[in-house]
Amino acid sequence: PQTRLPKVGTTIFTVMSQLALEHGAVNLGQGFPDFDVPERLVRALDRAMREGRNQYAPMTGVPALRQAIAAKTERCYGYRPDPDAEVTVTSGASEAIFDAVAAVVHPGDEVIVLDPCYDSYEPAIDLAGGRAVHVPLDPRTFAPDWAAVRAAVTPRTRLLMVNSPHNPSGAMFGAADIAALGALLADAPQVYLLSDEVYEHIVFDGRVHESALRHRRLRERAFVVSSFGKTYHCTGWKVGYCIAPPALSAELRKVHQYNTFCTFAPAQWAFAEMIEAEPEHYERLGAFYQAKRDRFREQLLGTKLKPLPVPGGYFQLVDYSAVSELDDAAFCRWLTVEHGVAAIPLSPFYENPPPGQRLARLCFAKNEATLDAAIERLRKL
Amino acid sequence: PQTRLPKVGTTIFTVMSQLALEHGAVNLGQGFPDFDVPERLVRALDRAMREGRNQYAPMTGVPALRQAIAAKTERCYGYRPDPDAEVTVTSGASEAIFDAVAAVVHPGDEVIVLDPCYDSYEPAIDLAGGRAVHVPLDPRTFAPDWAAVRAAVTPRTRLLMVNSPHNPSGAMFGAADIAALGALLADAPQVYLLSDEVYEHIVFDGRVHESALRHRRLRERAFVVSSFGKTYHCTGWKVGYCIAPPALSAELRKVHQYNTFCTFAPAQWAFAEMIEAEPEHYERLGAFYQAKRDRFREQLLGTKLKPLPVPGGYFQLVDYSAVSELDDAAFCRWLTVEHGVAAIPLSPFYENPPPGQRLARLCFAKNEATLDAAIERLRKL
Ligand SMILES: CSCCC(=O)C(=O)O
Ligand SMILES: CSCCC(=O)C(=O)O
Repeated sequence: PQTRLPKVGTTIFTVMSQLALEHGAVNLGQGFPDFDVPERLVRALDRAMREGRNQYAPMTGVPALRQAIAAKTERCYGYRPDPDAEVTVTSGASEAIFDAVAAVVHPGDEVIVLDPCYDSYEPAIDLAGGRAVHVPLDPRTFAPDWAAVRAAVTPRTRLLMVNSPHNPSGAMFGAADIAALGALLADAPQVYLLSDEVYEHIVFDGRVHESALRHRRLRERAFVVSSFGKTYHCTGWKVGYCIAPPALSAELRKVHQYNTFCTFAPAQWAFAEMIEAEPEHYERLGAFYQAKRDRFREQLLGTKLKPLPVPGGYFQLVDYSAVSELDDAAFCRWLTVEHGVAAIPLSPFYENPPPGQRLARLCFAKNEATLDAAIERLRKL
Repeated sequence: PQTRLPKVGTTIFTVMSQLALEHGAVNLGQGFPDFDVPERLVRALDRAMREGRNQYAPMTGVPALRQAIAAKTERCYGYRPDPDAEVTVTSGASEAIFDAVAAVVHPGDEVIVLDPCYDSYEPAIDLAGGRAVHVPLDPRTFAPDWAAVRAAVTPRTRLLMVNSPHNPSGAMFGAADIAALGALLADAPQVYLLSDEVYEHIVFDGRVHESALRHRRLRERAFVVSSFGKTYHCTGWKVGYCIAPPALSAELRKVHQYNTFCTFAPAQWAFAEMIEAEPEHYERLGAFYQAKRDRFREQLLGTKLKPLPVPGGYFQLVDYSAVSELDDAAFCRWLTVEHGVAAIPLSPFYENPPPGQRLARLCFAKNEATLDAAIERLRKL
């Protein structure tokens, strides 16, 4: 068949995980924890199955879960979305992003993405018949250049996609970013916002996550997407959600209804219970990961890799210029095959990777033993 | 926002389930069982969670599950798909259908659907920029008129969507349908087939399910979609799959990779175990449901509703002309509100419902007590 996605190959995360497996490498590539999900969540899911929560959930999500999400959102960001009209449970943040794009991007529309960005954004835009317009983030700080974003807006711009804490860099929006973004949206009424906030609870050093939901000017125009995968150490459960104003939620739900219809029901009941019963889990997640980050960065000082700052998320970027002149894709293969540590190159996150950029992404959502094993190997570089 | 799906409202299944809830009606509307999933499946899922199968599954599905699907397909249909290149696990059959359509339907392409058909087909086609071309099934037997299907084929036809056993009617393809379909595809090399076979194991009276996978001329051009929801009484688990030749699977996977990426991982391990350990579960499913069908039809003889034949699936169509002159949508509301039994009208499954058709769909995937309660109410009509 003639392909509808000519640019799409196998995602870099799959490629590097397979390579890691083949070569027995410590896998710090694809972003997933190697520790257990909370026991309460497993027990709650088990109970949900035994209580017969095994048939179709409501298309929008189990009411108890939507209410728990609304309450948690209010606790965290001071805004309570309407669980009936504004909260939709999806099969991971991935599906929420796909549905939101499909819902509002018409053929010929433009969508602004900030490079480097997550690799699912552009295929979703392409399938909707839209065109991705790539605006680079600052190559060192990964901060948006709001003047450049503004300059990229045209009458055909339908959506602006942002991500804070940012994958792959960990960069986070500050108050100035929110102000610039609000002003931009005020001046461009044709533009919606998609805010990908899956690392919302993994923030460090006392920083505040500037959720779009905190800010009326943003949330009135935004699809805010999150997921439980990163927060509850279960990336393979694929339960996410989207919070959006009623009119946007209605359009997103039209797509969701005929895409996956609903999401694994017993897990929805389990998350509803978990969120309410242990708010301290997500409240302490930043501290939990900060300890891992600090220890890992300390250990990296004993290697030739230079760690960049990590404001949030569970990825550590390292500058490998002192080790190799290979481009990042070749370096990450070499590191995996020859040194037994899998990493993710940054170039697949870009339309035009900055020439000479020598950065690789290491995931520190791992047990100490895993990180120690990786460090031991990295020391030999 | 300007909608991308102007024709889409809330699906009739959600509407009727809500109405049933509001009015305390026995819900024979939306198709789902009210009995338990097999104990082995619950235990296996629990074990998978406790063994740490909680991170991203491979995008194509857990290998053990793809192998189990391949082996089961060979046992059932005499053809073993390549688990690596031809089997893809999705978030329910819904996502498989959505992905297949998105993968091959280009803007301006035509897709032939046979009315009445499942209500997710057309929105998926619309989002891909295609156009659904509706060819009616026979209004009494629900058999395809293959000459009419052939006459609907144009150079722009990209896909033909079929469904056997058929929802809502239970009609099944016979050998003559397969021959006609094979000849049609041979004469129209621009057309792919999407065969929705989610009721594959619910077939009665010794009939054979004519899976597209049995027939080389069909499977070489087909996306064959199925799901575990109907087979294992867990419609809310949303684990489905698509079997297609490597080139078609490759295109479907490009969409799947950026739509949901992967499906609730612990359930994949559980199904892998269940399929292999208890083949008798799906082998005996026809007999299990045939007993329910026979009992329910017997009971319906004591009402004024006239049951149509049910070759397969878990739905009973009834002709209500002896009871009411209301159109089917009004009749089903009336039946729910005034008589406490929720049913599904057929008109939402059509572009142009046959005028004067007085049919409603009742789901008999229920415990005897549920069906008895419904019959008691239906007797009063
Ligand atoms: C769906 S695999 C990608 C996981 C991830 O979010 C990452 O590694 O960036
Ligand atoms: C996703 S709700 C629809 C369930 C179903 O397949 C039906 O009732 O026909």
